[in-house]
Amino acid sequence: MMSDAPLPTEPAPTPPAARPAQISPVEFATRLAARLCHDFASPTTAIASGLDLIEDPTAQDMREEAMNLIAVGGHKLGAILSFARVAYAGAGAAESYDARELEGLARAIYGHARAELDWAVEPATVAKVPSQVLLNLAQLGSAVLPMGGTARLSCREAEDGLEIALDAAGPRARMRPEAAQGLRGEALTEGLGGHWVQGYFLYSLVTEAGGSLVFETAEEKITARALLPRG
Amino acid sequence: MMSDAPLPTEPAPTPPAARPAQISPVEFATRLAARLCHDFASPTTAIASGLDLIEDPTAQDMREEAMNLIAVGGHKLGAILSFARVAYAGAGAAESYDARELEGLARAIYGHARAELDWAVEPATVAKVPSQVLLNLAQLGSAVLPMGGTARLSCREAEDGLEIALDAAGPRARMRPEAAQGLRGEALTEGLGGHWVQGYFLYSLVTEAGGSLVFETAEEKITARALLPRG
Repeated sequence: MMSDAPLPTEPAPTPPAARPAQISPVEFATRLAARLCHDFASPTTAIASGLDLIEDPTAQDMREEAMNLIAVGGHKLGAILSFARVAYAGAGAAESYDARELEGLARAIYGHARAELDWAVEPATVAKVPSQVLLNLAQLGSAVLPMGGTARLSCREAEDGLEIALDAAGPRARMRPEAAQGLRGEALTEGLGGHWVQGYFLYSLVTEAGGSLVFETAEEKITARALLPRG
Repeated sequence: MMSDAPLPTEPAPTPPAARPAQISPVEFATRLAARLCHDFASPTTAIASGLDLIEDPTAQDMREEAMNLIAVGGHKLGAILSFARVAYAGAGAAESYDARELEGLARAIYGHARAELDWAVEPATVAKVPSQVLLNLAQLGSAVLPMGGTARLSCREAEDGLEIALDAAGPRARMRPEAAQGLRGEALTEGLGGHWVQGYFLYSLVTEAGGSLVFETAEEKITARALLPRG
């Protein structure tokens, strides 16, 4: 995981995949923390609202509604946490994941989204970094299909490494400019930090691992493809 | 927030505070994400256990216990999230914080700890980065005093900048070796990533801002002092 990416001012030419972005490590870490806090905030607030209602003696007729808020929030929180532990935190000691576990984590995200997930992952087990790439591409797929459609997520052994791809197709498929900036390893200029940092995290994951990431946006269609060197 | 810290191989001499650590940005961001997920996990699990009990028809006699699990977990979750949004995520648009708000966030952490907090922050408002430093030092104070004691947290305008200090004193006050590695900007060799990354986050925050961080451990006493240049 160590990186000694050269600075732009150094004379030696650097391949595009390894070119360093002008993002400070603290800004990167801070924005990722902000994204996680944002994702956790909505179910946490729902649970707090439910608890407030239950503790309010004048709102005893809303008990069922309160319990429902808590139950939905609690289950969503569990799904978001399980997803984040693999997608962002690289979950501790595990060196690889069962593909069925990854599918479950991805499907839980699509349970709250309009788009359908088409899971086309061939290997039965996936190493840590490709697993992170896979889940982040899954999340990107649901984000670029706000009006629904199908996000096909594939992973296969190709001649030159492990290929992980998202093919998202649907009405008004759209990649936010800040997500595209992040995916190119560029600094955020405007827009939402949470969308930018997911793209930048994907870019950094893939390039630090010595791989490459390309994406394309066309009408009603967005594709992204990561190629990772064989571990 | 941008940093162009020179590499060790560059000819120009660099002050110790700006020396780059051999940590890849992805490892840093990933370990911080893991720390947040870890902090969120225990209340999330408590809420899930409570919900399971409530949904279990054979456990209707444990309803009160279940609601208690949910309530305690929900309140703890809210406190952890509010703390993390300022301490780690640098909470979005806010450029500075009211010191009373920071005190409330710090006290909520001490509500679950054995140590006492002695809040000695002089300025009425604190800018974003010093606020992050303050809250991280507060959390460090509770971590180094597992058997109780007093963590004095001070912040004052000094001649050469803003000085933020932790003076922790108590029986068996102890800094974990991995936390010390992080505070020195060194890579984690062994121990818990969550303790290391908090130290490393503090080190990075302070040095990226052009400040310095020193700490000292003595018998039953641990001090840490950050000096930040005037904004």
